[in-house]
Amino acid sequence: MERGELLYEGKAKRVYRTDRPDRYLVEFKDEATAFDGKKRGTIADKGPLNNRISAYFFALLERAGIPTHYVETVGDREMLVQAVTIIPVEVVARNIVAGSLSKRLGLPEGTPLSQPVVEYYYKRDDLGDPMINCSHVVALGLATAEELHRMRELALQVNQVLKEHLEPKGIVLVDFKLEFGRVDGQIVVADEISPDTCRFWDRATGEKMDKDRFRRDLGGVTEAYTAVWRRLTGEEPDVRG
Amino acid sequence: MERGELLYEGKAKRVYRTDRPDRYLVEFKDEATAFDGKKRGTIADKGPLNNRISAYFFALLERAGIPTHYVETVGDREMLVQAVTIIPVEVVARNIVAGSLSKRLGLPEGTPLSQPVVEYYYKRDDLGDPMINCSHVVALGLATAEELHRMRELALQVNQVLKEHLEPKGIVLVDFKLEFGRVDGQIVVADEISPDTCRFWDRATGEKMDKDRFRRDLGGVTEAYTAVWRRLTGEEPDVRG
Ligand SMILES: Nc1ncnc2c1ncn2[C@@H]1O[C@H](COP(=O)(O)OP(=O)(O)O)[C@@H](O)[C@H]1O
Ligand SMILES: Nc1ncnc2c1ncn2[C@@H]1O[C@H](COP(=O)(O)OP(=O)(O)O)[C@@H](O)[C@H]1O
Ligand SMILES: [Mg+2]
Ligand SMILES: [Mg+2]
Repeated sequence: MERGELLYEGKAKRVYRTDRPDRYLVEFKDEATAFDGKKRGTIADKGPLNNRISAYFFALLERAGIPTHYVETVGDREMLVQAVTIIPVEVVARNIVAGSLSKRLGLPEGTPLSQPVVEYYYKRDDLGDPMINCSHVVALGLATAEELHRMRELALQVNQVLKEHLEPKGIVLVDFKLEFGRVDGQIVVADEISPDTCRFWDRATGEKMDKDRFRRDLGGVTEAYTAVWRRLTGEEPDVRG
Repeated sequence: MERGELLYEGKAKRVYRTDRPDRYLVEFKDEATAFDGKKRGTIADKGPLNNRISAYFFALLERAGIPTHYVETVGDREMLVQAVTIIPVEVVARNIVAGSLSKRLGLPEGTPLSQPVVEYYYKRDDLGDPMINCSHVVALGLATAEELHRMRELALQVNQVLKEHLEPKGIVLVDFKLEFGRVDGQIVVADEISPDTCRFWDRATGEKMDKDRFRRDLGGVTEAYTAVWRRLTGEEPDVRG
């Protein structure tokens, strides 16, 4: 697969055309940002780790019957995906209070939720990705009510599959963010599923194994991402460094 | 009806017990606050005006078959209402972009919405009344999904009734906030419906006829509230001053 024109450079990835119009190549970068881009840095080996971890989760979801954009891993940092039209609504599913929800509801981080909470955010960097709801999505024409309903349903399914898969590996799935795309009249899980977009807590120690280590300057970021891979596979990641 | 124990003093009203356990007396104050209480002031005659305007709207809704807490007007600033258990979720319905939605979506004030937007806010002064969604409401146990669905349905009905009533009076209903209460196994519209809780724009001039005149220091606040009463009834309000 030939790497074609750079279509989009984001905060964590680059998206390229390929020689097939229905395929894009996603390249995972080591760069990290937080707090609407106000914090910036580099996390060694993040690109290769997130490429592997995302591929692992996408394959897991596909086996569970959940459609994703994932096609195959084609390089250390590169994944081949279906070319989709991204719906500019980030869907967050939460099992335990953390981050912005802790501030919003005045509940301490770690408070379990009696049932999963699903939130929608308008993917608009210039507005700081504001929280919105179904009626905003529909009024703005970002998605139809039916599409949003499907996204919510898929997010809850993804939550169930990931949670149950991570549990025996000693990882608590606190929350995660998904992006969805339209392709061939269907909605598929797109973008990435990685420690950049999920909160993972070690079940035994409560230690954070995700991007909060970067956001909160806790150190050991690469080590935490590597530990996630080790928990998933039992193996050391063979990142080229 | 005897005025009993002061149950609650809020930012705009006082709620008293009465000699009937199923009735409360609501007293409308002239005090006004904005921006989470950071701005404070007094609007001459606001209490008597909001008491009249709220009674007018509650009676209108009752005639349209929408249950409200309103029983009768018993004084210049006093309204007798059903004692309800307030659900701590403020429901906002919007027809036109204004205020916080303008900032949230990056759309200019005055942008019409293709369909009404309904928003939920957690009634918690200490948290700044944060926006929440259905899954937060249910996870926090503030209301059941069925109750919230009913509140949304009632809010959209209220919107339709008020909008159509105000239109021929030259008032555009931009948005409004409702509170709901539980009483006798039913959900009723409670609190107040007034220029403190609605955005009214003069259709001809676009002039604001609501609390935004106070929030934004536009002057003529009492005059605007009085003009709303005049538009509704064709009469001058006989407030005692
Ligand atoms: N299958 C896909 N097809 C098209 N665009 C995609 C696909 N998967 C992800 N994207 C988009 O590519 C970009 C990924 O880069 P990223 O660095 O995460 O961007 P951002 O800074 O917007 O978060 C995102 O805008 C994402 O929505
Ligand atoms: N019918 C009712 N029964 C009980 N409480 C009510 C009723 N109607 C309104 N309330 C409550 O009374 C208070 C009204 O006072 P207000 O000054 O508006 O308070 P706030 O500062 O909380 O907005 C609010 O907390 C409102 O929820
Ligand atoms: Mg991204
Ligand atoms: Mg109030």
